[in-house]
Formats: sequence, C-alpha cells, structure tokens
Amino acid sequence: MQANSFDVIRIPTNGPGDVSGLMALIDAGALDPSSIVAVLGKTEGNGGVNDFTREYAVAALCNALSSHLRLTPREVEARIAFVMSGGTEGVLSPHITVFTRSRTPERVGANPGQKRLSIGIAHTRDFLPEEIGRDAQIEETTKAVEAAMRDASIEAVSDVHFVQIKCPLLTSERVQHAAVRGETVITASGYASMGYSRGASAIGVAKALGEIGAEVAESQGLKDWALYSSVASCSAGIELMHNVVILIGNSRFPSSPFKIGHAVMRDAIDLPAVMQALQSVGLSAIDMQSQNRLVNILAEAEASPDGPIRGLRHTMLEDSDINATRHARAAVGGLIGGVSGTGAVYVSGGAEHQGPAGGGPVAVIARV
Amino acid sequence: MQANSFDVIRIPTNGPGDVSGLMALIDAGALDPSSIVAVLGKTEGNGGVNDFTREYAVAALCNALSSHLRLTPREVEARIAFVMSGGTEGVLSPHITVFTRSRTPERVGANPGQKRLSIGIAHTRDFLPEEIGRDAQIEETTKAVEAAMRDASIEAVSDVHFVQIKCPLLTSERVQHAAVRGETVITASGYASMGYSRGASAIGVAKALGEIGAEVAESQGLKDWALYSSVASCSAGIELMHNVVILIGNSRFPSSPFKIGHAVMRDAIDLPAVMQALQSVGLSAIDMQSQNRLVNILAEAEASPDGPIRGLRHTMLEDSDINATRHARAAVGGLIGGVSGTGAVYVSGGAEHQGPAGGGPVAVIARV
Amino acid sequence: MQANSFDVIRIPTNGPGDVSGLMALIDAGALDPSSIVAVLGKTEGNGGVNDFTREYAVAALCNALSSHLRLTPREVEARIAFVMSGGTEGVLSPHITVFTRSRTPERVGANPGQKRLSIGIAHTRDFLPEEIGRDAQIEETTKAVEAAMRDASIEAVSDVHFVQIKCPLLTSERVQHAAVRGETVITASGYASMGYSRGASAIGVAKALGEIGAEVAESQGLKDWALYSSVASCSAGIELMHNVVILIGNSRFPSSPFKIGHAVMRDAIDLPAVMQALQSVGLSAIDMQSQNRLVNILAEAEASPDGPIRGLRHTMLEDSDINATRHARAAVGGLIGGVSGTGAVYVSGGAEHQGPAGGGPVAVIARV
Amino acid sequence: MQANSFDVIRIPTNGPGDVSGLMALIDAGALDPSSIVAVLGKTEGNGGVNDFTREYAVAALCNALSSHLRLTPREVEARIAFVMSGGTEGVLSPHITVFTRSRTPERVGANPGQKRLSIGIAHTRDFLPEEIGRDAQIEETTKAVEAAMRDASIEAVSDVHFVQIKCPLLTSERVQHAAVRGETVITASGYASMGYSRGASAIGVAKALGEIGAEVAESQGLKDWALYSSVASCSAGIELMHNVVILIGNSRFPSSPFKIGHAVMRDAIDLPAVMQALQSVGLSAIDMQSQNRLVNILAEAEASPDGPIRGLRHTMLEDSDINATRHARAAVGGLIGGVSGTGAVYVSGGAEHQGPAGGGPVAVIARV
Repeated sequence: MQANSFDVIRIPTNGPGDVSGLMALIDAGALDPSSIVAVLGKTEGNGGVNDFTREYAVAALCNALSSHLRLTPREVEARIAFVMSGGTEGVLSPHITVFTRSRTPERVGANPGQKRLSIGIAHTRDFLPEEIGRDAQIEETTKAVEAAMRDASIEAVSDVHFVQIKCPLLTSERVQHAAVRGETVITASGYASMGYSRGASAIGVAKALGEIGAEVAESQGLKDWALYSSVASCSAGIELMHNVVILIGNSRFPSSPFKIGHAVMRDAIDLPAVMQALQSVGLSAIDMQSQNRLVNILAEAEASPDGPIRGLRHTMLEDSDINATRHARAAVGGLIGGVSGTGAVYVSGGAEHQGPAGGGPVAVIARV
Repeated sequence: MQANSFDVIRIPTNGPGDVSGLMALIDAGALDPSSIVAVLGKTEGNGGVNDFTREYAVAALCNALSSHLRLTPREVEARIAFVMSGGTEGVLSPHITVFTRSRTPERVGANPGQKRLSIGIAHTRDFLPEEIGRDAQIEETTKAVEAAMRDASIEAVSDVHFVQIKCPLLTSERVQHAAVRGETVITASGYASMGYSRGASAIGVAKALGEIGAEVAESQGLKDWALYSSVASCSAGIELMHNVVILIGNSRFPSSPFKIGHAVMRDAIDLPAVMQALQSVGLSAIDMQSQNRLVNILAEAEASPDGPIRGLRHTMLEDSDINATRHARAAVGGLIGGVSGTGAVYVSGGAEHQGPAGGGPVAVIARV
Repeated sequence: MQANSFDVIRIPTNGPGDVSGLMALIDAGALDPSSIVAVLGKTEGNGGVNDFTREYAVAALCNALSSHLRLTPREVEARIAFVMSGGTEGVLSPHITVFTRSRTPERVGANPGQKRLSIGIAHTRDFLPEEIGRDAQIEETTKAVEAAMRDASIEAVSDVHFVQIKCPLLTSERVQHAAVRGETVITASGYASMGYSRGASAIGVAKALGEIGAEVAESQGLKDWALYSSVASCSAGIELMHNVVILIGNSRFPSSPFKIGHAVMRDAIDLPAVMQALQSVGLSAIDMQSQNRLVNILAEAEASPDGPIRGLRHTMLEDSDINATRHARAAVGGLIGGVSGTGAVYVSGGAEHQGPAGGGPVAVIARV
Repeated sequence: MQANSFDVIRIPTNGPGDVSGLMALIDAGALDPSSIVAVLGKTEGNGGVNDFTREYAVAALCNALSSHLRLTPREVEARIAFVMSGGTEGVLSPHITVFTRSRTPERVGANPGQKRLSIGIAHTRDFLPEEIGRDAQIEETTKAVEAAMRDASIEAVSDVHFVQIKCPLLTSERVQHAAVRGETVITASGYASMGYSRGASAIGVAKALGEIGAEVAESQGLKDWALYSSVASCSAGIELMHNVVILIGNSRFPSSPFKIGHAVMRDAIDLPAVMQALQSVGLSAIDMQSQNRLVNILAEAEASPDGPIRGLRHTMLEDSDINATRHARAAVGGLIGGVSGTGAVYVSGGAEHQGPAGGGPVAVIARV
C-alpha cells in the first residue's frame, strides 16, 4: 500500500475573482494542479444570502483550472471540493487554502507513532428545498462524513479535528418551487434558512463522530443547544444544493509535514481555548517565532443565541443593520488575529450546533 | 490643601435610554450624584453620523439627574462631562463608566510615593462648522487639555494616560449654514467630517502633551500619520458643537483606590500591547483572578488607513455596506474582550492621529 | 350633544429629539396642547429592532409636553397615542402629524350629509412575550379597534379609512423572560417577531371591521396572505409591550375641515391606486394646485413575500445588508413622493396582512 | 452606403452569473452573438466599492460568449461594451439590455424623415489612479463621446439622448500605487472616488455635446452643480481602469424599429419629467396598453447634495448604514417602476453633473 502525501498552502487573494496566486504556483511548478483535492477560502462578501463572491470565486477557480486539468469548469467543480466562506469582517484577510494529495513511493508507516495531517472528501446528493434543515440533510451528511473519514484513512473519531461542510440555503425561488409541489420548507426566510442548514449539517457530523446519539432528529435543530459537534464547521451558500464535506484529521498513514489539533471555544471571547488549540500542535501565542510554523487557524464564530456573553448583554442579535454572523466573525477574527499575528485565518460565521451555544471549534494546522 | 477622592464605577445598560442602574446606586446611597464629574459610555448605535443613541443617552441621563441635582437638564449637561461613544459591535456590551470626585478630609500626600488615578475636565467654546477639522479646533483643544491637566492636579505629561475627547461633526445643515455665510467647510461628507474632527482634536492633545511640535497645523491632519498622540481617544457626535475633554492620569495628590496605565497598539491585532497595558497596572491576561481588579479598558480602534495589516490586505475601507469604524471596533473589541474576559470595555472607533496609523492607545484602569 | 372638532397638523422635524416645531405652535397659541389626542411620526432610524429613534422621539415629546399639560412624562405617554414609525429611506422626510380633538359649541349635524374626518384612540393591555403574534394579540386588538371606532363616533365600518397600530416586538431579553417561565415565543428572531406582531395586529383589525371571519386564528398569521385588512397599518417597536390603536375615518358628527379616503395598492408599484386614493378626497396627482389641500398620505409598504412583482424578480428578501422593510419603504416612498410632490408622507414598512401580499393600504387626508 | 439595423432586447437574470436567458436566445437563433455591440445591465450588488456582482456578470457573459464568438473571454470584453450598474434596491429587477447592430441590404434613407435609434461605442485609454476625477479623465471622455457619436452616425448633438459611461474607481491598492510613484490621488476614500470619477466623466460628456464650455475643468468637479449634462449617465466600478462609452440617440441612417427620447428630472420626485420622457416617444403613464411598446427606461438617481428636496429635509446623506446612492436608486426606482409598471428598468445611482443637482436624465426606449 502506497502512502498519501499532503500539502497545505495558504494563498492571499486580491478579490473574489483573483486566481493569480494559485496560477503562479502552478506555472512555477510548485503545485501540481491534478493533486488538488480541496480549496477552503474566505471571500469578501457579506456572508449572507446575496453573497455572490462565493460562487464567483468558485467559478473563477474552475475556469482557471479547467485547461490545466483538461476538464470543463463543471467537471473541475465536481472533482475538487470547494468551500468558500463569505465575510472577511474586521481584520480578516481574503485568502484560499489549497489542500493537495499525492501518492508517494514510501511505504506505510514511514513515520511510526507520528500521526500526520490527512484529508478526506465527500459529497451528498442534491437536496430538495424542503429537505434543507431536516432529517434528510442530517442523514445524508452523516453518511458523507463517514465516507470522508474512510477517504482520509482516519481510523479513530478522536483523530478527526475539523469537518468543514458547505451546505445550501433557501431563496424565494426555491421556496416557491417547493410550494408549487405542495411542499413546505422549514422557513421562508433566506437568511434564517442558512442557520437551519448549518444546524442540520452539524448534527449530521456529530452523529457520524458519535458525539450525539443516533436518535437526535430535526426537531431538535436550532432548539437543543446542548447537542453539538466539537469539530464541525458549516457554511451555507446560494451556489449549491448538496453538502460538500472536507474532513481534516491526523492519520498514521500519510507522510505529510503537517499536524492538526483543535480545542473548543465556549464563547466568543474564549482566549484560553485559542491558546490551547495552538499548544495542541506545539505552537504558542506569545512566542512569535513559533508562528512561522502556523499554516492556518480554522474557527467557527457565532453570536450567543440566548443573549448575554458571561452575563453581559451583547447587541448582535438585535442589530437590524448588520447581521449577527458578520458581528461574530469580526469579533472572533479580531481575537484569533491577535493571537496568531495574522488576519489570513479562516473564521466562518454561524455556529449552530458547531461547538456549544455562542462558542465553536477552533482548529490549528501547523508545520511539524 | 484637601485631597480629592475619586471613584470609578462601571454600570451595564439595557438600552441607550436606560438609567436604572445609575439611579439604583444613587437611591441606595452608594453614589452621591453631586460628585459625578464625568460619564463615559458605550451606546449601541452605529457610531456614525445618524447615531442618535449618543444624544438620547445623554438626554436620558440629564433628565434623570436633573431632580437629584436640582438643576435643569441643560444645566446638568453643562456641569458633567458626558462622552458617549456609539457602536457596540461584536462582543462589546453597552455600559457607562461613571467618574466621581469628592473632597476628602485627608491631607495632601496621604499615599506618599504612590500616585493614584485622577481626573480633570474641560470644554472648548462652540465651533463654527468651518472650524471643524481646522486650526481653531486644534488650538482650542490644546488649551482645554492643559486646563484639564490642571483640573486633575497632574504635574507631568508622562502621568497622563488617557485623554478622551468628544467632538462635533458636520451635517448637511451645518454645511449649508457655513455656505450661506460664504464659508467653506473641510468636507461636505458627514461621515468624513467625523474623521477630520477626531484628527484635529487628537493633534490638539498631542500638542498639549508635547508629543508633537507646536508648528503642526491643520494641513497635516489626516495626511501625516507619523504625528499622533499616544493617549488621545476622540469620538465625534452630532449632539454637540464644542469639544469636551476628560483627562485621566495618575497624580500624587488624590486618595483613590485606582491606578491607570497605558500602552500603544501599533495595529489592530497587537495582542502584546494589550497585555503590556494590563501589566502596567499589575494585571495579567492569563491569570483570570487578577481580572477582578480590572475596572475598565479604554481603547481606540481603526482600520489601517494605508491598506494592509502586517502585509495582508484587509477589506474594511472598501466595504460599502459597513463603515470601517464599525469593522475596527468589532475586531479590536473581540481581541480586548478575549484578553479581559468581558465585553463591557470601552472601545471607540476612528483613531486618526490617536496612536500610529491603524493602531491606537489602550489604557487600563484597575483597583489597586 | 356637542360635536368634536378635529385638526391635523404636519410638522417637519430636524431629528428624532426635535420638538421645536410643535413647541413653537403651542407657544404661538396655534395649538392647544390639551387637545392633542395622537401623534403619528416618521423618525429617521432603521425601522428595525434596534431603532431607538422611535422611543427617543416619544420621550422627547413627553418631556416637552409635560409642563404644558401639568403631567409627568409617563402620564403624557398614557394620555396621548404616540405612534412613531422608524425609517425615512430615500426621499421620505422626518415629520410628525399631530391630531387634536376639541369640543365645539356647534350642534350635532352641523354639516348635514357631509361626513368629516374623525379620530378615535384605544390601547390594549400589555402583552406577555409569548402572546406576541398569537391569538391573545389578535383578540385584544379587535376589542381595541371596536373601542376606537366608538371613540371616533364612526358608525359604519365603511367609514373607517386608516387604522394605525403600534405593536411590540421580541428582544433576546424578552425571549429569555418567557423561557424562564417555561413559555415558548413565536420566534426567537427579533426582526422576524416584528412581522408576526404586525401580522397578528392586522388580523385583529380585519376581524373588528368584518373584513375577515371571526374564525381566523394565529395559525394563519404570515401564512394565508388572502386574509387582510384594507385599512390596517401596523408598526412594531421596542418601546412598548401593548398595542396602541389610532383609528381615522369620516363621521357625520364632527365639524372638521378635513376628509380622509383610501385605496389599496395591490403591489409596490401600483400608481393607479395612489391616484385613486387622491381622487377619493378630490385631489389629483397631475394638478399640482390641488396639492395645497393635501395634509398627508398614509401608506404601508412591503416586499412581495412570494418573490416577484408582476412576474419580475425583486431582490429585497435576499438582501442580507438591507432589510426588506427598508427597501420597500424607500421604493413606495419614491412613488408616493413623486405623486404628491413631497417627501413628508407617512410610509410605514412591513405590511403583513395589511392589504394584499406585496401591497398595502394608502389613505389620503385632505383639507375640504 | 449600407444602413445599420439595431435591436434592443431586455432579458431578466436570475443572478449576476446567470447567462441562460441570453444563451437561450442565441441557441434559438433569435439573436446573432456576433451582432452584439453593447450590454447594459443592472446587477444585484450594493453598487458600491466592493460590489463584485458587476465584474462577475461581465466575466460570466464573456465566458459564455467566448465559444460563440471564437474569441478568448478577454477578447470578448474588448469587443463588446459591457456596462453593469450595481444596485437593484426596492422594486428594481436584475436584467440585462442587449444592443445589437447589423448591416442591412437597405439603402441609406430607408425611412426618410423618420429618425430611428442608433448606438455608438468607444473606449478611452486606461487611466492612472491619479488621473481619476481629474482633467485627463474629462478630456479623454470628451474625445471618446465624439468618437461614439461618429460610430452611431448621429450628426446633431440634439439627437443624442443617453450617454452611458462606465468609469473606474480608487481602491486602497490603487491609492498606494500612486503614492509609491509620488503621485496624489483626488481622494483616499474608495466610495468618494466613485463620485469624482462619475463627475469628471459627466463633465466630459457635457463638453463633447456643447452643454458646457470648453474651459470647464477638474476644479469645478463636485463643486459647481450648475454644470451638467442632460444625457450623461455614469456608473463607477472596480473592474476597469478606463472609461467605456455607450451613446444612444436617433439617426436618419439606421432602419430600426426603435426610438429614444429623454427628459431631465430636476429632483428625485419629478414625476412630470418621467411622464414627459414617456410622451417624447409616444407613450403614456396612464394608458397601460402603450406600455407594451416600452423597451426600457434609463435613468440616473441621486440624493440632493445640498440637503433638502423641495424644502424638506431628506436623510440619505446622513445615513451611516446605507449609502446615499442606494437610497436614491430605491426611491427613483419606485417612482419609475410605478409609472412604467415594471421593475426591470435601468436606474443607476450617483448623478454628479448628470442632470441638475439632485435630479438626473431619464431616457425612454420604445418600439415604434
């Protein structure tokens, strides 16, 4: 059995349509386009329903990779797992993180006792509008996470440190499509549907990883906040109707120079959790030298859904000018940016059932 | 000579018109309303031109204190220095900080060698619209800061740790008033005028404290970012036409159980500067126990005006949906909230000439 | 039986706290403060959950009228029906419309065969958070509308042309208050709760006026858009927990120099309906001379909830930067402003069950 | 000499990346892709600096037309004049208007005495950041408008009814690029630069058409509002560094079944001007039957820059949550949508020197 070798490359972008950084690496021979398995990006839209920077970024990447891969743009999109998270509020800096996987001639067990970063990918089938936020989405996500774990050659759920999901949302048109067929959707609000879709997806992850029982169902979505996954990160977008799963963990099989670890922020100001996540891969918030080994921090941010943070009122949920997800990304991005010394970190918004209410997972990828 | 005794009390609010917390303290005898010299607040508006939560909060406080002080609301406003900073983005929590000053029977030098927190207040005259952002505003601010320093019995400029300024802005009407008289204002944009007003005020502070030379003039405002005050914090509002100065430092005269210290953030993710400010008054970011002695953190946030933060692009200045000041407050509020373990900190936005470009002062008030 | 005489005065404001126009009229003897029964205003906030300009405007008016009426501000608020609608998007101009009622020495039937403008006022009791948007709110509103009709001496429902309701909304705190008592609210989203509250209130109006059957219940709220009142206008605000009703129509009893008429816009671009409303009181959109007799236009605006307008997609419901109510007020305000030649018209947003889906009532008050 | 034949087709879009409507017409043989000279679109972004829907729409169209025209996407963009105006606030509906030109076998003067719609296209060279809003942009635009007039075979300036300009804006990066070379830009604010760029472009149009004297220069830009073009419509975007000119008028040469006419709105509520523009091509606002002949209405909207509209205060310029251009588009879109019975009209925002201050041109294209 041959081992996989993984690479993780963070590339700043000048706009949602900017592919120049990736193309330069390919042109320079530093990155083989056929080895790309996933691209995780932060784009500079509003992160809401009408954030078209996500689909624009994916379209630009698919067009650019099309000739290199001798595939149509649509085939590129089917082959690589693209997850763009909209919203670079505050100090957050637009960028993409490219994950590659290639076969190596090394034998299994090249680094005995040393688990290294591994990635697995999977998709669900397309959902009908009325399935979004409901049991169908939960169940299909569970299956896809299990498939992604196998794809990553990760044997124990404790070795899974970040499961990124891209999931669909409802638009007026999709609601109408369901209505025409006599079906009712979970909510008529496009913005609210993003939360239901993220929540169902996260519950699906938690079931796959045994974090919650198999009996948990859609009725508990966005209600019972005690149910959550410690590693799920879900981002909803207008540009797809299925769930994409990118699962990242450590495995004893691959020969990568990377490790991943994680911690769980219990609220949006949980500095110790961010420091603990850094320490889990041997980094320190204070020692700036260690930051050279930092590849990226992946985190989920959300406004505490039941009001206060440590007993003090926040105003994110009452703001009719700026959506709560934008507030939360800006705040958590400021904290993580301060700790890591860079704004090019992946902070995604809307953490329903992704970590405890008001908190969320924070994972760190570091060079060994 | 009698010494002054100062008290600093942080009170959460339930809305911009909420005075119940302050009234409860007065009713309980815990706070003598006649000793109030200044109120520094964070209100939950947008912090922009049309943020009426600032004037609403001041009106509510003046109305509520009116009967206790046997003064009309207008007289209350003239007697107490009110500075409301709009914008509680992200984890920031609306609150007011009340500063009181009372004469004590103790002799001068009650705490020899131990400087303690002291506060001084001053106002400038009302400005004409065409004076905002210009030399007249700079010069009057310089005089007012000098007066506030005397009022605080602070002898050395190195003992001044925070100078909060409330300054006016331009509206369409004010621009027209100037035009009718044949005068030209510095900008016709209300939002842009907030920056010019804050910038001129900060230059006025820097001149008073000898941080920059007496020759610096309006022409360098919002241009030469090397000119700045390390302790100025300026907030513009629609509700006044003059500058209000609240100067906070340490003095050998008063007998207060508080100290203040400060550091300068060189950019919006300068975690070490926040930690250094805490350490300057004997607190620690890591040791949560020490946080019981924390009274408040006062900081200025801004988007780096020349684009990147540590070489990476931010998008705050290009966002036509959310003003850059809101982004910056959310991000710096997230960082300081994480370090201090609370969202009830005073983070104000728009730090033109208040600290280096993209950074700003951060002061900490602690119980000794 | 003595007749009532009504006056309707439209006063521009310079800000939410500006009462100078009203005070000038009182000081000049042109308006007897004790005759004020209702004030209907447009304030310049965002019209959403955190729009504090509404409560600020009411507070300023109550404070200012307090000494004239020899009442506390709280007693003024209980005596006069204040309804502030937030949001002056586009060409809309902040203003208040003051309605006065005074006894006249004339006998009943002073203007035989000529019905004239009459106003009636009523309040419901305070609602619990869990009652908002539900049957309790519907039923109490129905009773209050019946009481207001009697108060206005209007005998036939066909003589009722505008029923303005101010109703409460949910905040995170109110949701928590219900949860603590084991009660569930209709939605945890503050912005969404505004729609439910307006919808239940409008259904209550429709029941009182016989526009829909007595069997209609909360389960049809925000679902069955065929159920609506042609004259209801509902505005939700954070500043109250009960419903305020201002009912305006024509009656044979009063001796007012005013008439009111209305039409129903079937969508947001229904120019003929606006012209028909003008014609119902003898005005014309084209003849600008007739506009001197115009006192105000009162209308409800909303984004078509099922997507398109006349078959063409609008984007109001998908916009995560600007709430749909703001879009709708701006657009309908532009249309009505164009037809009436003034931006000082009362266009309120969020017309759930107030006119057909996507449309709303439009009433015109004119001098005879 | 052969005559040109023009076609004008309005196509609704389902999103900024949606090209399906245009592709369906091409596939059905109803539209020859090689005849396309210009595409004028409304996309659903915020219309501000960070509105990427404009460049995304152009990229999608260029990609889609690439294979039909056997050109690279970049060559398609150079061949066809694309102008996307961001912002479909209120009732405005996203759509594109495609203009085609083809040679016909008919002789010159096929419709003697009957001028018909004709279109001309031109580009300027790329501008340096420091040239935006300045004389270089004015002069190059003047030359390009003259070239476009020749391209359209329009002999008299009175036959020019609409000149659409797409012009660049400044970003932080572009400001830095100028600074590195020691050059100063007209404003460091991206949003403000959009106004300067539109203003200089409109002055360039006015000079080309003899509406203002040749001596007018950059120093009067955004200052002397008495200087304006009655037919210029300018839209700024991040996606280009040159000006694109699409000039539309009537000419005696072409054999098109279309006419264009225009009027000038003197403010944002100028209903009579809109009606006059309709009447100039034989349509009526009241007679809905005539609306079948309407192809599109092209208009410019802006917030009155000196404050009030007909003496009443508007709040568009003071709103720190929604930019004034968004307010203005929503309001004027509501008015024009009401008059024309459709939201698929081209209302662009920011009318500096495009019509009188606070007003703007309104042109109507109709089938003969």
